[in-house]
Amino acid sequence: MLITTTYFYAPPGNFSKGKVFLDGEEAHHLTRVLRAKVGDEFIVVNGIGDSFKCRLEKSHAKGAVGKVIEQIESVVQPKIKLSLCFGVVRPKQLEIALDWATQLGINEFVPLVTDFTVREIKSGTRLERLQKIAIRAIKQSKRSWLPTICDVVELREFLNRRGKNFDGLIYADPDGLPSPPKRMIQPDGSVALFVGPEGGFSHAEKNELAEHNAVPLSLGPARLRAETAAVIGVAKIFAWTGDL
Amino acid sequence: MLITTTYFYAPPGNFSKGKVFLDGEEAHHLTRVLRAKVGDEFIVVNGIGDSFKCRLEKSHAKGAVGKVIEQIESVVQPKIKLSLCFGVVRPKQLEIALDWATQLGINEFVPLVTDFTVREIKSGTRLERLQKIAIRAIKQSKRSWLPTICDVVELREFLNRRGKNFDGLIYADPDGLPSPPKRMIQPDGSVALFVGPEGGFSHAEKNELAEHNAVPLSLGPARLRAETAAVIGVAKIFAWTGDL
Repeated sequence: MLITTTYFYAPPGNFSKGKVFLDGEEAHHLTRVLRAKVGDEFIVVNGIGDSFKCRLEKSHAKGAVGKVIEQIESVVQPKIKLSLCFGVVRPKQLEIALDWATQLGINEFVPLVTDFTVREIKSGTRLERLQKIAIRAIKQSKRSWLPTICDVVELREFLNRRGKNFDGLIYADPDGLPSPPKRMIQPDGSVALFVGPEGGFSHAEKNELAEHNAVPLSLGPARLRAETAAVIGVAKIFAWTGDL
Repeated sequence: MLITTTYFYAPPGNFSKGKVFLDGEEAHHLTRVLRAKVGDEFIVVNGIGDSFKCRLEKSHAKGAVGKVIEQIESVVQPKIKLSLCFGVVRPKQLEIALDWATQLGINEFVPLVTDFTVREIKSGTRLERLQKIAIRAIKQSKRSWLPTICDVVELREFLNRRGKNFDGLIYADPDGLPSPPKRMIQPDGSVALFVGPEGGFSHAEKNELAEHNAVPLSLGPARLRAETAAVIGVAKIFAWTGDL
């Protein structure tokens, strides 16, 4: 039997000599929740773009081993590499935005500290939890690309350190453009999308964004909840690149 | 002081002789949570497109009374009237889709029973809870239009009874068109968007949808969670009408 209701995840290091090792959680999902038996087939993605059909060889408390049968076609990633940089107040909002945006195919997720955020999201535990959410989202959406999840960073520091590395910087703003500039959303390009917490960005931050040639993008006339704005911002950009 | 962090909701029947009556929950939000005092100003929307600046005159356990000062400009509603018809398995998914889609400006929300849904969403209590979620979403997004929330209906019955009343019928489908047909998303038009549960629509249902001239719309190559698909479907249509 080939299990297709969900894909499974194993990082590249878990593949070796034609076998794949599923860690405890993935193995539990496969053999306990979905009750796969030895000989059953399932799909494993490696988080860097590859998908493989595998056959279960054995499973025990600590994990499961599958034989890699063949590489299969992966779900197409969006034409641009999109980094979602999201400043939030509540951890739950961060998690929802990451979950949904990962389904849509972002390349990277950057939790931001901004003038209007509370600096409470700092621990490694939090990153670990975000990682699990991203894995769940790629398994659900059958994507093979696991977004990089960055450590929390200040907006200013991010702009100074990495602003120049992107082909386009876009930030959500009620007075922004109705659509992203064409030059910023070319195939194979990279874009960082900044979405602030409720209350948006401060004047000082908008000035700084402008100094880095970031352009404001409107997400419609209503005031969206922060996590809604983050996801809709991603959706709007992917609608314009034809990836949605 | 003018309170702008949230709008308040009172149905048209609560407006009379230049006054507005806020029911218990709205009054609690205004006077307890936000600690408004007599003389403070706040915005009230009536759910049918109008927004008013009001001044608090008195409040008691059962509600609050405000004096209507002036009508103000409302957040613009999308150019097309969009009915989101959503077939789901779990009530929580229904609630999330309604919440987000209301922020985006849908006109109507229709919980669907389809071949792949479980028929558990039936009671009036459920409708009452959905109503509260929609009210919370318009208050958050400052919209003045409260979507109509229909009782649960079977897809087939909906198509037969109301299919002809829409200018366009669109359903989410992995093999669908990359964009909605232009003729279906004209200003002042009305569109029903059908999004199935995980598993989508059955072959019989797709045939029925086709018989009613519904067109399939792709939401990208990944398999989105049901509530994500519902919201992204709405966002995609509003991106094409320029309402996002």
